[in-house]
Amino acid sequence: MIIDCHGHYTTAPAEVEAWRKLQVEALANPSQAPQKAALRISDDQIRESLEGAQLKLQRERGTDLTIFSPRAASMAHHIGDAQVSRVWSEICNELVHRCCVLYPDNFVGVCQLPQSPGVPPATCIAELERCVKEFGFVGCNLNPDPSGGHWKEPPLTDRWWYPLYENMVELEVPAMVHVSTSCNPAFHTTGAHYLNADTTAFMQFLTSDLFKDFPTLKFVIPHGGGAAPYHWGRFRGLAQDMKRPPLQELLLNNVFFDTCVYHRPGIELLLKVVPVDNILFASEMVGAVRGIDPETGYHYDDTLRYVNSIEWLSEADRNKIFEDNARKVYPRLERD
Amino acid sequence: MIIDCHGHYTTAPAEVEAWRKLQVEALANPSQAPQKAALRISDDQIRESLEGAQLKLQRERGTDLTIFSPRAASMAHHIGDAQVSRVWSEICNELVHRCCVLYPDNFVGVCQLPQSPGVPPATCIAELERCVKEFGFVGCNLNPDPSGGHWKEPPLTDRWWYPLYENMVELEVPAMVHVSTSCNPAFHTTGAHYLNADTTAFMQFLTSDLFKDFPTLKFVIPHGGGAAPYHWGRFRGLAQDMKRPPLQELLLNNVFFDTCVYHRPGIELLLKVVPVDNILFASEMVGAVRGIDPETGYHYDDTLRYVNSIEWLSEADRNKIFEDNARKVYPRLERD
Repeated sequence: MIIDCHGHYTTAPAEVEAWRKLQVEALANPSQAPQKAALRISDDQIRESLEGAQLKLQRERGTDLTIFSPRAASMAHHIGDAQVSRVWSEICNELVHRCCVLYPDNFVGVCQLPQSPGVPPATCIAELERCVKEFGFVGCNLNPDPSGGHWKEPPLTDRWWYPLYENMVELEVPAMVHVSTSCNPAFHTTGAHYLNADTTAFMQFLTSDLFKDFPTLKFVIPHGGGAAPYHWGRFRGLAQDMKRPPLQELLLNNVFFDTCVYHRPGIELLLKVVPVDNILFASEMVGAVRGIDPETGYHYDDTLRYVNSIEWLSEADRNKIFEDNARKVYPRLERD
Repeated sequence: MIIDCHGHYTTAPAEVEAWRKLQVEALANPSQAPQKAALRISDDQIRESLEGAQLKLQRERGTDLTIFSPRAASMAHHIGDAQVSRVWSEICNELVHRCCVLYPDNFVGVCQLPQSPGVPPATCIAELERCVKEFGFVGCNLNPDPSGGHWKEPPLTDRWWYPLYENMVELEVPAMVHVSTSCNPAFHTTGAHYLNADTTAFMQFLTSDLFKDFPTLKFVIPHGGGAAPYHWGRFRGLAQDMKRPPLQELLLNNVFFDTCVYHRPGIELLLKVVPVDNILFASEMVGAVRGIDPETGYHYDDTLRYVNSIEWLSEADRNKIFEDNARKVYPRLERD
């Protein structure tokens, strides 16, 4: 079985964006904000939005189950206040839930959290609990920078985040560290901000004792861990210079990387330097890069091809990356 | 000949830091600021600061010439105003110049620019000209984020920077894109901010037509290009999705990467995916990582070993990385 731990509902019907537009337009005048019930989307619309995209690609590529969450770039926690973020997150999570109900063999949900800049993360607990307990979701996406590129929140290792972590541990759900749209002109969203956030989070974890406080807390750092595996020697050396324990002991019981790296040499590096127990298969499709690589003739984000092309990877290790590690990191995934 | 294009004067005598401390303490009361002349350092002190460090490592490792600049983390352009930055930059550049005069075979200078948050980069031209014309420096370090981790400056591709670029082109000097200390608690300076800045700059270049306006302008992106080579497929795909030209045509006449990647797999990836004409040898020593890698028994930053261990690299390509590319990017380097 092949589990793709990183897919977003990037193909939602246009009505969703239109509803969001009304919500944003009403920011200055909340009484004009649209009601949740005003968004009406049929099951057929949802089927149609998935059949030609995520489901088609699952079938073509031969993956089975996608751990599926709302579109990351649309979370935009910097827009409006906590109430705006709460309603928008509920809508996005409910849509993902409907995808999972319609295609229970193909999708399992991960939720967007109703974060808002400067607002304590504890306010996200209710929505996380709803998604896990009522919808059967298996994780959440945690945004280390709800400001959208201005990085005003304390590091992920600060006690600011602890109430949410306590809840995650209790629920046995991991978080994927995932920022949203950058509204800072310095950072391109998918080409810089996403990767920077991955690297930033990894270094925050490296310099802290967070996992002494939460030995079972788990994070997936997406996009192949940002710059971390490419600079693995730098990070090993920085930890050593700081008299920290080796990376394995310091954070590899708690921090995992996905395989969203869109060329074979990058995947090979990831598999060479990061222990196989810490790598989860993922493609981020339909996502940041949608084209076909002229050098291979296949989609850039068809990461299964890259993993399968690594001839020195044993069958047992391949199964860890494709399935076993995901079941370990997301214990709420049910065995079929 | 082996040219190391990325070395900083991280071992300056303690008097320099003490002078800077006085300068910072006088920020609220500029009349108390120390005079430049109050900093007295003898040639012997400078020799001593280099002999046991950069020069020793050059000899031990077998490199010849280091393109040498002030300590990057100390630039701290966010401290004080443009006048404070100007005086501090002059001091740092003059010290590097003295290193180069004392050891003309071992060091050639690159200057720190007197940048200051929100202050037009054109104000840096006088110091750049002084360093190039009077001291024989061959390049500059350009900080894309003089705010120190708050990223308030326009992207490097904005016309905001053009007057400086015009001067660089006229002088035939490249810039290394190099941030300084992060004062944003989200970003560890050497473990996150440096790498993020590299990735950010690469993506800024990728999305702009800067090099149509300045066909001969050249940048070195340090630390192996941040996350760029590891995600080369992602960047190729993003450019393609945006209908931009292929990376080669779009920016590889103007953008170069150094080899400050502290493990063999990272260096091998860099050499595999980035054209050899765009790679310049560098170690960043004495710099961010100072320890010995227990996996190899050698210093993490002894990058020459990694490059030399890549058995499939031809002698001609090795010479490009060690010398020829540096002479192309830094045309003011004189042939001995």
